[in-house]
Amino acid sequence: MGSIYGKNVKISVFGESHGQGIGVVIDNIKSGLFIDDEFIKSQMDRRRPGKNKFSTKRKEMDEYEILSGVFNGRTTGLPLCAFIRNKNNKSRDYSNIKDVFRPSHADFTGYIRYDGFNDYRGSGHFSGRLTAPIVFAGSIAKLILKEKNINIKSHIKRIKNIKDVSYMDMENIKKDIKEVDFPVIDYDVYTKMKEEIDIARNKEDSIGGVVEVCIENIDAGIGDPIFETIEGRLAKGIFAIPGVKGLEFGMGFSLADYYGSEVNDEYDYKDNNVITKTNNNGGILGGITNGMPVIFSVALKPTPSISKEQNTINKDNQNVKLKTYGRHDPCIVPRACVVLEAITAITILDILYGY
Amino acid sequence: MGSIYGKNVKISVFGESHGQGIGVVIDNIKSGLFIDDEFIKSQMDRRRPGKNKFSTKRKEMDEYEILSGVFNGRTTGLPLCAFIRNKNNKSRDYSNIKDVFRPSHADFTGYIRYDGFNDYRGSGHFSGRLTAPIVFAGSIAKLILKEKNINIKSHIKRIKNIKDVSYMDMENIKKDIKEVDFPVIDYDVYTKMKEEIDIARNKEDSIGGVVEVCIENIDAGIGDPIFETIEGRLAKGIFAIPGVKGLEFGMGFSLADYYGSEVNDEYDYKDNNVITKTNNNGGILGGITNGMPVIFSVALKPTPSISKEQNTINKDNQNVKLKTYGRHDPCIVPRACVVLEAITAITILDILYGY
Amino acid sequence: MGSIYGKNVKISVFGESHGQGIGVVIDNIKSGLFIDDEFIKSQMDRRRPGKNKFSTKRKEMDEYEILSGVFNGRTTGLPLCAFIRNKNNKSRDYSNIKDVFRPSHADFTGYIRYDGFNDYRGSGHFSGRLTAPIVFAGSIAKLILKEKNINIKSHIKRIKNIKDVSYMDMENIKKDIKEVDFPVIDYDVYTKMKEEIDIARNKEDSIGGVVEVCIENIDAGIGDPIFETIEGRLAKGIFAIPGVKGLEFGMGFSLADYYGSEVNDEYDYKDNNVITKTNNNGGILGGITNGMPVIFSVALKPTPSISKEQNTINKDNQNVKLKTYGRHDPCIVPRACVVLEAITAITILDILYGY
Amino acid sequence: MGSIYGKNVKISVFGESHGQGIGVVIDNIKSGLFIDDEFIKSQMDRRRPGKNKFSTKRKEMDEYEILSGVFNGRTTGLPLCAFIRNKNNKSRDYSNIKDVFRPSHADFTGYIRYDGFNDYRGSGHFSGRLTAPIVFAGSIAKLILKEKNINIKSHIKRIKNIKDVSYMDMENIKKDIKEVDFPVIDYDVYTKMKEEIDIARNKEDSIGGVVEVCIENIDAGIGDPIFETIEGRLAKGIFAIPGVKGLEFGMGFSLADYYGSEVNDEYDYKDNNVITKTNNNGGILGGITNGMPVIFSVALKPTPSISKEQNTINKDNQNVKLKTYGRHDPCIVPRACVVLEAITAITILDILYGY
Repeated sequence: MGSIYGKNVKISVFGESHGQGIGVVIDNIKSGLFIDDEFIKSQMDRRRPGKNKFSTKRKEMDEYEILSGVFNGRTTGLPLCAFIRNKNNKSRDYSNIKDVFRPSHADFTGYIRYDGFNDYRGSGHFSGRLTAPIVFAGSIAKLILKEKNINIKSHIKRIKNIKDVSYMDMENIKKDIKEVDFPVIDYDVYTKMKEEIDIARNKEDSIGGVVEVCIENIDAGIGDPIFETIEGRLAKGIFAIPGVKGLEFGMGFSLADYYGSEVNDEYDYKDNNVITKTNNNGGILGGITNGMPVIFSVALKPTPSISKEQNTINKDNQNVKLKTYGRHDPCIVPRACVVLEAITAITILDILYGY
Repeated sequence: MGSIYGKNVKISVFGESHGQGIGVVIDNIKSGLFIDDEFIKSQMDRRRPGKNKFSTKRKEMDEYEILSGVFNGRTTGLPLCAFIRNKNNKSRDYSNIKDVFRPSHADFTGYIRYDGFNDYRGSGHFSGRLTAPIVFAGSIAKLILKEKNINIKSHIKRIKNIKDVSYMDMENIKKDIKEVDFPVIDYDVYTKMKEEIDIARNKEDSIGGVVEVCIENIDAGIGDPIFETIEGRLAKGIFAIPGVKGLEFGMGFSLADYYGSEVNDEYDYKDNNVITKTNNNGGILGGITNGMPVIFSVALKPTPSISKEQNTINKDNQNVKLKTYGRHDPCIVPRACVVLEAITAITILDILYGY
Repeated sequence: MGSIYGKNVKISVFGESHGQGIGVVIDNIKSGLFIDDEFIKSQMDRRRPGKNKFSTKRKEMDEYEILSGVFNGRTTGLPLCAFIRNKNNKSRDYSNIKDVFRPSHADFTGYIRYDGFNDYRGSGHFSGRLTAPIVFAGSIAKLILKEKNINIKSHIKRIKNIKDVSYMDMENIKKDIKEVDFPVIDYDVYTKMKEEIDIARNKEDSIGGVVEVCIENIDAGIGDPIFETIEGRLAKGIFAIPGVKGLEFGMGFSLADYYGSEVNDEYDYKDNNVITKTNNNGGILGGITNGMPVIFSVALKPTPSISKEQNTINKDNQNVKLKTYGRHDPCIVPRACVVLEAITAITILDILYGY
Repeated sequence: MGSIYGKNVKISVFGESHGQGIGVVIDNIKSGLFIDDEFIKSQMDRRRPGKNKFSTKRKEMDEYEILSGVFNGRTTGLPLCAFIRNKNNKSRDYSNIKDVFRPSHADFTGYIRYDGFNDYRGSGHFSGRLTAPIVFAGSIAKLILKEKNINIKSHIKRIKNIKDVSYMDMENIKKDIKEVDFPVIDYDVYTKMKEEIDIARNKEDSIGGVVEVCIENIDAGIGDPIFETIEGRLAKGIFAIPGVKGLEFGMGFSLADYYGSEVNDEYDYKDNNVITKTNNNGGILGGITNGMPVIFSVALKPTPSISKEQNTINKDNQNVKLKTYGRHDPCIVPRACVVLEAITAITILDILYGY
């Protein structure tokens, strides 16, 4: 229980990092949608590793085969299954972690949860590689949302103490992103952030960061109070992405620094439209959209895979030292952007069902 | 769609702040549980307003009547409905907001969502008052979890820039909380935090804060990867609580400030037990518990109800000024603690179904 | 787990036959619906016992109090809770069954399932009395479906070997029902059926029967293949009604008596409309409506409560004789009609969500 | 929405009759289960067409590839995907039904539901071929249930007016089935039933029938009242199987022919065991198992595919004549047995989660 998601539009994710492959079944998408392979591939490319020195050197082309649900180039409305067969699965890389639990990875918890039967190679089903089918499904969701004029985008908000500006300022939403593989709004932080990542790589260490996501053009009045809030539903999806440890809407934790009078979003009727003068609540009040862009930020921890020696235990409960080798990202944040957009798109598509 | 929660153990919340009352149906609790009214009342009391100057002066005794599911003082295993009849519902207090949307409240979003038919009095179903039945259900959940030795507690981690210590340090989990209605670990911050709230009240303003929750004695190996992570499931519940705008597990957003080598939780086999030397991940890896206490922090925004004049619009889309009167908490954080514990207990009980 | 129903429009049923009362929470009904008490009461009356000699003499007025979700006489769109307080709960009637399991009742299975903690009085939560809140919710659903021109009705298709005609013949759908409390299409069978029930009552015995339900004016193209067929979704609801042991769509079991060429429903384009010349499939093909009325038949077993002496066991596993007294229906079929219509209406309303 | 099934153990079915292939993802099966390919193949073989003259001549070897969830020959506990690539997909066979709706098939309803975008070839996702992945998943479920000593079996109860004896008589449960591909308890009816099928085939017509399923050794006390009854949950699954139009538990519709005193199942304490002297309720009371075998019967309509000329309409709403050719079963009942067992096993496994 854990790899099926959604209420009305559902996705079912399967596969392992070093098994036959990875895939996704999408249930209940609209019929007649043109499968825009060029767009889907552009999205898959944003997540794909091995493109440059900022990501792992492991190369995966991530070519998908559509096994069902498409006929004459369009969705049938029935379950769409896409499968990505693994090609570059060098299992020997992982022989040294067969019996030793990498700190802050899922090795130990997966071992306990599945009585040692789970596929440990490359983290198996826990691998970040499982986000590839999520990006595939997210691309389909984005294509459908586009028809409703809804757009989902993201940028790197912070790497270490280098901070980009925020989507909470409406002006920043309009700005173009120069580099799709390393999206920042204020291009001045681009080089500085890359430098921080370089430092981490040179140390054979890793760093995390914060991504900010924006949902543009979602109507007011979407969502429900209490247990089906937009925040709660998005949160369920966002925490599915490996490495996510924090989530805040609008100003989030910073709201605790101010008085109500300083951060309440005042309404304004302007140009035949209800807006709020600020968007500190990230476009959601009482769990329901207020017509402003939905904005939230996601904290990603540093990749736990580092080459430095660490203390840990093995399957015999012995305290041991571990040095992991292999091909790891010093920072997954740039690649995480499209993944977070994807799960956001899938969730919003599901939420919109019935409206 | 929005007021039913849970997968196997479910709760269904109903009612309005100024209607007949508020209540909850709990579906699929174990049979034979002794209804410990004293304990339940002690929990309800922690949430109840009007006890002291730190909360709203509105007095509600929150006396519940159990309408079903209890026989001879014990749960039958069949749906338990508890109902709290409203007593102190002075509707006239809210006549001035009938046509004007309070900034950062759900007035506008509820109006749009329900085509103007929702009960606006005292925020209706959006009212923080709806957390009373959640605390009732949480008390039942806590009683069941107690039998499994699982304990859920919380403290005020931050009010403005006054910070308490964290449960991430195991020593702090063991410390006694002196004042259950205003729980802090380091008693030195107690007075300072109260002073900050006093300042806000005197300004007729409001402030938010951060609560940290701890789940003690939960086994390793609970949870699932990807879409049913412990983080995702808790998040769905936590964001149901009015005013919550952020959530982080363990170090959360701070993880982005460090290198992997600095924050990875190294394992240690000690006293016949697997522990981690630090608990920066808040007891969860790959969505599954690792045997350490589960720790998370919740950001609560300042109550939007303030007495200061604010700009807003009315139902005719006219820009107007609003001054709200009435009985409001300058800071809901102290009362929110037991509510966050309650939804945590309900969620954990549901997660444990099947283990 | 068992008393919450539905996917998008949900109902949560609670209460016991001899406890405080019985009730229902309806989640996610449209806002603005006028609560037509006269209509609701007319539906409740069709189910209410004690009206005549064909039903139990136990009198329950079944007066509901709406505890939430209605404001100024209309639904708010937020959870609607209705509660019926028990008045006529003479618990002493049931003292003789406290320790003895009535054959074909839920006494034994409930006792095992809930470790003896369930309320045995009058079958507790297993009582047919729990269908009263279902009829309440069904009335609300019918009011909403009426706005879409969808009508749900039923008649007694069979009592013993006395058979009414069928809705599978379109002409019969148009005919008026004379006696709403004992609905038959062919009035000739009315007296004969009543005579059969009289015979059973005079024998202090009970009889079952078959009810046929018709959903008029449901569009073609509603439903899904495989796991969310109209048949499967209705079945889930229909088997919730106590005493139901069989369900068939259209000709159902009789289809096994014919060749395909004899029972295939041929299409005909007539008066600018696609119809089928026969409706042997009950309006559903591949799990999806074809535009014809949806027709199904439900088998109800004889009430297990009879006054004849029966062999059974007690809680000490001793073989004993049992004679039950009390107020029982010799035949629940007439009262079951409105209950089956109600659960049908609730299910169809849920299915239509998203179309 | 329609191809994902289950509450805690879930299956997600995908594929089309004449597309790339068909498959299933199983979510939340226990880890460590040995994949007994021999057993799985024996089950797949029972469903496989083309083996003999009683089924369609279309040959499909139905060889599955396991794409995920199995490591070193055992289940990992993570999603198991099995895929059967289509080999014998002669699309030209179906060109004549591209624009014409076959009576009593899903052609018309699928066309309306999916705006004409669904894959019509060989019924696409509506094809009986989709039961192959269900049988695969059912085999896995059976392997797990075997460990709990639960056994699921079935026999052909009726073909036309040729009737086999029933599992309601405990003696019949113990009897061996001689011919697994055409299971009957009383071997005397074997030849007669086959003759009836022969007659239908010679007429280029089709016939339906009734299958009776038995779940042996399921404990008393499993299930829930009202909306999660064993009957309701099984019904949801059973009606997923193409061609099913009726379902009855125990005596089902026949219960309406008797007085309560004639059919109530009296309890008996015998050999340290609670049994009922008869099993007219099919092992379920109040929605909960009573410890007797769970017995139910399923009505299957005659395959709508017949070679006789029929009246129908085309996509332009013109009344036309249709003669379908191709390879069809004159009677799907023998092959349906293993399919009904499979969905029963999947459902029971899901129901048992949490016990």
